[in-house]
Amino acid sequence: MAVYTQVPAEEIDAFLTRYDAGRLVSAKGIAEGVENSNYLLETTGHDGALGSGGGHRYILTLYEKRVDEADLPFFMDLLDHLGARGCLVPRFIADREGKRLQQLAGRPACLIEFLTGISVTEPTVGQARAAGAALGEMHRAAEGFTGERRNALDLPGWHELAAKCGEDFDRIAPGLGARVADELAFLDAHWPADLPRSVIHADLFPDNVLMLGDEVTGLIDFYFSCTDIRAYDLAVTHSAWSFSHDGATCHGDRAAALCAGYRETHGLTEAERAAFPVLCRGAALRFLLTRAYDWINTPADALVTRKDPLAYLRRLEFYASADPAVLLGA
Amino acid sequence: MAVYTQVPAEEIDAFLTRYDAGRLVSAKGIAEGVENSNYLLETTGHDGALGSGGGHRYILTLYEKRVDEADLPFFMDLLDHLGARGCLVPRFIADREGKRLQQLAGRPACLIEFLTGISVTEPTVGQARAAGAALGEMHRAAEGFTGERRNALDLPGWHELAAKCGEDFDRIAPGLGARVADELAFLDAHWPADLPRSVIHADLFPDNVLMLGDEVTGLIDFYFSCTDIRAYDLAVTHSAWSFSHDGATCHGDRAAALCAGYRETHGLTEAERAAFPVLCRGAALRFLLTRAYDWINTPADALVTRKDPLAYLRRLEFYASADPAVLLGA
Repeated sequence: MAVYTQVPAEEIDAFLTRYDAGRLVSAKGIAEGVENSNYLLETTGHDGALGSGGGHRYILTLYEKRVDEADLPFFMDLLDHLGARGCLVPRFIADREGKRLQQLAGRPACLIEFLTGISVTEPTVGQARAAGAALGEMHRAAEGFTGERRNALDLPGWHELAAKCGEDFDRIAPGLGARVADELAFLDAHWPADLPRSVIHADLFPDNVLMLGDEVTGLIDFYFSCTDIRAYDLAVTHSAWSFSHDGATCHGDRAAALCAGYRETHGLTEAERAAFPVLCRGAALRFLLTRAYDWINTPADALVTRKDPLAYLRRLEFYASADPAVLLGA
Repeated sequence: MAVYTQVPAEEIDAFLTRYDAGRLVSAKGIAEGVENSNYLLETTGHDGALGSGGGHRYILTLYEKRVDEADLPFFMDLLDHLGARGCLVPRFIADREGKRLQQLAGRPACLIEFLTGISVTEPTVGQARAAGAALGEMHRAAEGFTGERRNALDLPGWHELAAKCGEDFDRIAPGLGARVADELAFLDAHWPADLPRSVIHADLFPDNVLMLGDEVTGLIDFYFSCTDIRAYDLAVTHSAWSFSHDGATCHGDRAAALCAGYRETHGLTEAERAAFPVLCRGAALRFLLTRAYDWINTPADALVTRKDPLAYLRRLEFYASADPAVLLGA
């Protein structure tokens, strides 16, 4: 959520000459996404002319250490595959030699399509339905994609993360360490083994969905996308779209709309429906763990905002006690 | 250089309904300017239609504590005055009731015109000339402006800042405290008293000049603008455009071009020319002092980049020993 690498505008302008993208007329460092450096660029377009209402826009991303360069071809191929099948996702742009991955200011760097739309903070029921439908469309479009990427934040990954937090959990809240250990034992015993797997977004928070009104105009930030249980993606999205920010209130109408939207475009098997409460518990634990780890490892006076891990403990407790039928809203 | 106040996109969209600015279609937090929070907005325009190449763009600024709300009318009136006289400066936009200053997310907030152009990092000679010419045009256009604002960073202000740094100067470099004290004594004895005064930008670094090629497309970030010795503005600009970043090398060709550009559009009186070396020493000391203060008061491991105060000590030593004729390049 910051610009980690400052790139002189002259270097960006020179970088753009590799592409049929026109000349640079504006470059603004933007604060968004995972830990990359992002610039919103405006160019004259490949015809060199400035449009009356503004030029062509692109996102320039420089990958900092959190994204592994070796994973970039997977993300690029995935977005090409999804885009070719009608999903509104930002494509990586190839230069005149067909190269999408470049180096800039000593970092792996890519020029990426800019999509309009805003990220809502408090989704309406209509927006939750549209997000569910867009996730289902993405899962349909992903069929036939042959790329594979392991989810580093799967059940074995949660065990590793919990072990790293160790004694420090209880500095966040007394008893948290024991609660996490209990939940991991529960998930070890109940995590489903035979559900359909596919490529999933794995982080489809409202931040990562661009909308205009109730319409989805883009799904972005695929840098956690991986191969995992497909219905787990709906569980992650459920945990991200259905609650108050502090996790204390589940908005049943949003949750129902999200699931209804997903059913319209994709749907769940009987086995997926049966496992859904466990998948939601896993999704809540995943964000509880990464937030706890960041909380423990970020000084309280740092400039980055620490997200409250307990907001996901509250979701976890909700999922652990909810009526399974209520979760899916039908 | 960060987004300090996060504003939900829904709130920005609602905020825009006060203006004839269209509906929000994109909002990106941008990392620029002094310590304000800035968003680059895109809207449908007041006709509600999206242009083919993109919509209308605006800057939304929320003022954090570094800008005093009481100063905002001065800045607004100045940019109106300059804009009406043909200067390329970003105007503050009035809502339907004629109000330019609003509140948003608990902060004073303004909608501001977006200007295209990029900020160069290593100015060419042609760009330095254009910057000098733009400064001179700005000084011409400022004639007749009746607003007044004291420069908090004037000679008395430098004494205050030096006193606050006190013993800590020598943590930056041994002997720095004594050098600053000597320079303050020199400036007390030689600071010119009777030079023409006017409103000045006071911070016209390359960051604050938008360019396309060798053409200036905008002067921005007037939040240090104030009433002071007019030629001091050229001295500040000289210190900002004529040196390598570390201050070790003065690029005489850039300096000469900057001054030539200024002469084309404004010019200096004989008294201003005579005092120019002293004004440049003052400009170098001003940035040395603010950088030293920030250095002392920013932890080394903070996420904000500390700018090296010694880069301005080197400029100061250059100015203290330079041939006056060389400074002005003629």
